[in-house]
Amino acid sequence: MTQQKAGTGRFPPSSPDHQETETDMKSYDVIIIGGGPSGIITGLTAIKQNKTASMLMIKEEAKGLVPCGIPYVFHDLDDIAQNAMGPKPFVDAGGEVLVDTVTEVDVTGKTLRTETGTEFTYGKLVFATGSVPTVPTFIKGYDLDGVEYIKKSYSYIEQLKKKADALHDIVIIGGGFIGAEVAEQFARHTDKRVTLVEAEPHCLYRAFSADFAALADEALTGASVNVVTGTKVVEILGDGGSVTGVKLSNGKTVKAELVISAIGYRPCTDLAAKAGLTINRHGAIQVDNYLRTTAKDVFAVGDCAATTGFITGRTDNIMLASTATAEARVLGCNLTTIRLLRNFAGTLSVFSTEINNKAFASAGAIEQSAREADVDYVIGSFEDVDRHPGTLPGAQKLKVKLIVSPGNGAIIGGEIYGGKSAGEMINTVSLAIQKSVTVYELISFQIGTHPLLTTAPTKYALIKAAENAINEIQARNA
Amino acid sequence: MTQQKAGTGRFPPSSPDHQETETDMKSYDVIIIGGGPSGIITGLTAIKQNKTASMLMIKEEAKGLVPCGIPYVFHDLDDIAQNAMGPKPFVDAGGEVLVDTVTEVDVTGKTLRTETGTEFTYGKLVFATGSVPTVPTFIKGYDLDGVEYIKKSYSYIEQLKKKADALHDIVIIGGGFIGAEVAEQFARHTDKRVTLVEAEPHCLYRAFSADFAALADEALTGASVNVVTGTKVVEILGDGGSVTGVKLSNGKTVKAELVISAIGYRPCTDLAAKAGLTINRHGAIQVDNYLRTTAKDVFAVGDCAATTGFITGRTDNIMLASTATAEARVLGCNLTTIRLLRNFAGTLSVFSTEINNKAFASAGAIEQSAREADVDYVIGSFEDVDRHPGTLPGAQKLKVKLIVSPGNGAIIGGEIYGGKSAGEMINTVSLAIQKSVTVYELISFQIGTHPLLTTAPTKYALIKAAENAINEIQARNA
Repeated sequence: MTQQKAGTGRFPPSSPDHQETETDMKSYDVIIIGGGPSGIITGLTAIKQNKTASMLMIKEEAKGLVPCGIPYVFHDLDDIAQNAMGPKPFVDAGGEVLVDTVTEVDVTGKTLRTETGTEFTYGKLVFATGSVPTVPTFIKGYDLDGVEYIKKSYSYIEQLKKKADALHDIVIIGGGFIGAEVAEQFARHTDKRVTLVEAEPHCLYRAFSADFAALADEALTGASVNVVTGTKVVEILGDGGSVTGVKLSNGKTVKAELVISAIGYRPCTDLAAKAGLTINRHGAIQVDNYLRTTAKDVFAVGDCAATTGFITGRTDNIMLASTATAEARVLGCNLTTIRLLRNFAGTLSVFSTEINNKAFASAGAIEQSAREADVDYVIGSFEDVDRHPGTLPGAQKLKVKLIVSPGNGAIIGGEIYGGKSAGEMINTVSLAIQKSVTVYELISFQIGTHPLLTTAPTKYALIKAAENAINEIQARNA
Repeated sequence: MTQQKAGTGRFPPSSPDHQETETDMKSYDVIIIGGGPSGIITGLTAIKQNKTASMLMIKEEAKGLVPCGIPYVFHDLDDIAQNAMGPKPFVDAGGEVLVDTVTEVDVTGKTLRTETGTEFTYGKLVFATGSVPTVPTFIKGYDLDGVEYIKKSYSYIEQLKKKADALHDIVIIGGGFIGAEVAEQFARHTDKRVTLVEAEPHCLYRAFSADFAALADEALTGASVNVVTGTKVVEILGDGGSVTGVKLSNGKTVKAELVISAIGYRPCTDLAAKAGLTINRHGAIQVDNYLRTTAKDVFAVGDCAATTGFITGRTDNIMLASTATAEARVLGCNLTTIRLLRNFAGTLSVFSTEINNKAFASAGAIEQSAREADVDYVIGSFEDVDRHPGTLPGAQKLKVKLIVSPGNGAIIGGEIYGGKSAGEMINTVSLAIQKSVTVYELISFQIGTHPLLTTAPTKYALIKAAENAINEIQARNA
């Protein structure tokens, strides 16, 4: 198909008509390694911008998964197939897909080789190799049978789901988003006893300040998860090579037939490192503001690429599909030449989840991250319900916290706890942060409100929180 | 109580200590006429900014109603008392309230008089007199018994609810927000037959372009409302002085024991006009960007005050509690001196509602209003579901339309149809319009997404709509 779409010559050195070269090498204007969200969106955007360019995506598994949908495979979704995600839109747009593993990249010769021995030359190369779960090698027993992970692999998760169906005692290590969501989903099965162990004082503590994170503990407990915070797993116990339980830093042991380690992910960058690309202290591929690596015509995007913190301008290690796809859109537009200036500098973490029918969302700085980064801040909080009058059926408590720079009043972070609408409300906060909206502006921000959909116009939560932040700033200056 | 809070002298001519003057006149630094959302928020904000100022609110009824909650009194709320709204926050902050009607204002002498004969002098005077339903004097039979309105009056609505409870055949004239919402609520009573008559091609046609407005018709029909669009009521029929039906422009008649006219509201400005304030062609009190009327130290805010359209800069007649309270916050801060610059120029209409469990929301320009105002635009649309994967329980269709200025790509309007989260999603669009965010920026906008709360990160609806708008612009320029 793409043989008719000859290289345009805008991607040097493109071989004409993608015919095999003397050395049997296939040639593409663009090759993308990885078929997750960032790979797909980069390819799709790039193909729209360069309709005549030839593009190949090389991915390891034929079937993919919606990454953030994985926890719901364990209960809410009837079938793992409902969470499948593939490169169909990319193929429909004219891209080609090869299921294979890239084993070697020569960034000088602009060639790569796969496990099956195929060789390719590329005009532009994109690393979209994603991330893999961190293995807790520092915990004794981490290599026992029955210690599993939330890998972004269709076949792996399919097996894990089958295996878990028959088991009753499950321990999850790590109360971040993935750990908390997986725990909640398993706990919805009445035949399972689920324990979640988190070393920090609260679950979701990297995304929420203490009072909001405490509500996450509460929501998990409400969903019948045995939540153990401020506690570490010191050993995974086994018998005959198989997991039997975990030993905690508080001296207790918890029975387990299955232990899921959800302590984080690390960028997949072994291939990139081998190719000589610069890797940063988080293990991510170093990129500039336009996702360009240290090698010419080589880009990296998504979980495998470095990110720069929005507030601090420092290297960060944010791994989110939403961030990855935002970057991928920029990269897709700019692959041949920088057509789309990046107006929003730096990467925001924008998180959201729902635990036991309570939504939790945050964007940008939180109290802990601001303190760690030595960023001065004031807090503006407000609490209400998400309907008006609050007597309407379905009204849920809504809590909003804004983190504000006291100098100019700019909003640098926000946290929301409430009903489902918190998931969209955080995007207003996210836009406010990205556009440097100040609390002085926000208090006259014109909003839409409706009894059945939002808080009251007289006390719209974001505006009231902004007002309270102004009071804080005034009190400081008084 | 406020006798101890002497005037600060910042509100000339304030009489000291609010004691009665020789002429028996009571004196206040600030008097607010009206106790709806804009009156309450102006008072509350002003009192926070001027803790020593004396403030009086004069309102006609002791009890007030949450204006946008009124339709829900007819079904979803058990009791009208659940929709009560009073000036308690203002009183708690130190304000005084008088239930009375102002009959005369002398803006030269800075005095006013009430129905009960009390006289006051003021330092600053705020008109927050709201709006009243437009009476369809142009329809024969408008004055029959059984022709009612959605007045923002506690006692009136209480009576109307009682009356409607016993009736079965109801015709509503006007399919704007109030008409549509009231129709949907009455239709939830299985013993009622509800007909909604709208002269425009669709209901909600002032807030949505044709394809979205058609979905509103569909939602109303789904809620068992007999929707008759593109049709006028030419006569209200009666027998013995009481309503029996309506005659339509299509020749048909519809039986009615109760006719509710919901054809719009007009600003309450008779008192202001009598006082010599300039009234504009919409019947609203003329104000500048800081809500100052043509008389010194006299302000107007909310439905009774003129608004300037955000896109066109022309006089507009937007009457929304959300707009009113945004203005009221600005006014409250700036009553003594302009402390808070208005960063967002002009007034946006931001609408939202829910009909038969479908949310409809819009902000800024729509296709019709852009055309009428001779504003060039392109459309960027996208349709999806509001969960990902879409197989998750509770997933609802989501449609987004952005109205974009092709020149610089600025977002000037947006419409959203979907589940409840559309009510907050529109506020992201509203902020984007107010901050002149372009579609070029929006496509790299960093958002939070979650399977249970939003569309997928790979195709977040606002971003995809922005992308499609860019395609439209490029196609034009090609």
